[in-house]
Amino acid sequence: MTTTETGADTPSSTEVVTDHDRGIHGYHHQKQEHLKRLRRIEGQIRGLQRMVDEDVYCIDILTQVSASTKALQSFALQLLEEHLRHCVADAAVKGGDEIDAKVKEATQAIARMLRT
Amino acid sequence: MTTTETGADTPSSTEVVTDHDRGIHGYHHQKQEHLKRLRRIEGQIRGLQRMVDEDVYCIDILTQVSASTKALQSFALQLLEEHLRHCVADAAVKGGDEIDAKVKEATQAIARMLRT
Amino acid sequence: MTTTETGADTPSSTEVVTDHDRGIHGYHHQKQEHLKRLRRIEGQIRGLQRMVDEDVYCIDILTQVSASTKALQSFALQLLEEHLRHCVADAAVKGGDEIDAKVKEATQAIARMLRT
Amino acid sequence: MTTTETGADTPSSTEVVTDHDRGIHGYHHQKQEHLKRLRRIEGQIRGLQRMVDEDVYCIDILTQVSASTKALQSFALQLLEEHLRHCVADAAVKGGDEIDAKVKEATQAIARMLRT
Repeated sequence: MTTTETGADTPSSTEVVTDHDRGIHGYHHQKQEHLKRLRRIEGQIRGLQRMVDEDVYCIDILTQVSASTKALQSFALQLLEEHLRHCVADAAVKGGDEIDAKVKEATQAIARMLRT
Repeated sequence: MTTTETGADTPSSTEVVTDHDRGIHGYHHQKQEHLKRLRRIEGQIRGLQRMVDEDVYCIDILTQVSASTKALQSFALQLLEEHLRHCVADAAVKGGDEIDAKVKEATQAIARMLRT
Repeated sequence: MTTTETGADTPSSTEVVTDHDRGIHGYHHQKQEHLKRLRRIEGQIRGLQRMVDEDVYCIDILTQVSASTKALQSFALQLLEEHLRHCVADAAVKGGDEIDAKVKEATQAIARMLRT
Repeated sequence: MTTTETGADTPSSTEVVTDHDRGIHGYHHQKQEHLKRLRRIEGQIRGLQRMVDEDVYCIDILTQVSASTKALQSFALQLLEEHLRHCVADAAVKGGDEIDAKVKEATQAIARMLRT
């Protein structure tokens, strides 16, 4: 990932070291917020188990499933936004072929989100 | 579908007692299977928390989110199928206005699933 | 829906003739409304072609694509509601195995809608 | 990506003129392909009108609606991929605040696609 272009020991203006190079992903800074969201979703899934166990009316369970799916999609969108802002933008700044690979990869992830 | 329970004295032709009347929902008979599915989804959500905690690459997390969303949709579809087969069909057999209300309610649940 | 209940000269109690038997589908009565909706969607698709042709900004095209997809989903939901109210309910009233096949078929159609 | 146009006497290092600045959007180069796709979708919508008009079975119409929705989503994904590769990547190269606005805008477009 870390492509130090020129061998020079004074970093030339084209040498860009990004967070991504340092193994810090886009979502890193929101880590606590993400974990909190996921714990809430985990609680919703446990709530669904209680509902099934207590023979709650089917339609009410479906409503709760939709809420959980929505929460997961919303988490995915935030992750994706940070990924575009950091990883994809970094690849663009660095130049070269990496941007194509990154954009293809992101688009495939979006396609998977759409198909569920 | 038309389960006239007791051998009681000549239930009139319009009087139909269904599972649904007795508070037994369509998904009742698959209860254990549903709980197993939901526990697996709960495990996936906990897996997501581990991934975020261990700074796994964004795209890999998104792939796992899509798998969880798909699992939730698949659970919802099975619940819906049982609901149509039991609750909605029972309403049709009973006749009267209930079928309209049941179909409207089911369609709205499907619309909520589509919009997430 | 047209259940010739009783009293009539000799249809046996199990013999129910429904609209569906007569080749009249659930959506028949809203035909003009459906055609109007579809013509409007066709106009939206032509609008998309104009936008691409006139080099409109990508995001604005995507917004219009989402509007068209929503309109198609909304058409599908109305069709499905009528299908449940007529074809599926008729199968339930007739009794026998048909209801299982009809519900399975409807659920698969919903699954296809979800996966797009 | 960084296309320093020509002729100009010593463009400063921060001055980057992109395709996007010149009003050429990412999807420009695939214009004919896009128009062909959209004409095919228009044909599918006209096919749907024929199906409704000829009283085709509801479920078969729903299958065709799903195919059209899928085709629209697939068109949107290709447009989005080109948008990320060109407009969003250009904004990253130019630096400054624009990348944030572009990424926010793209994410909102993806959210709209998911919600239909």
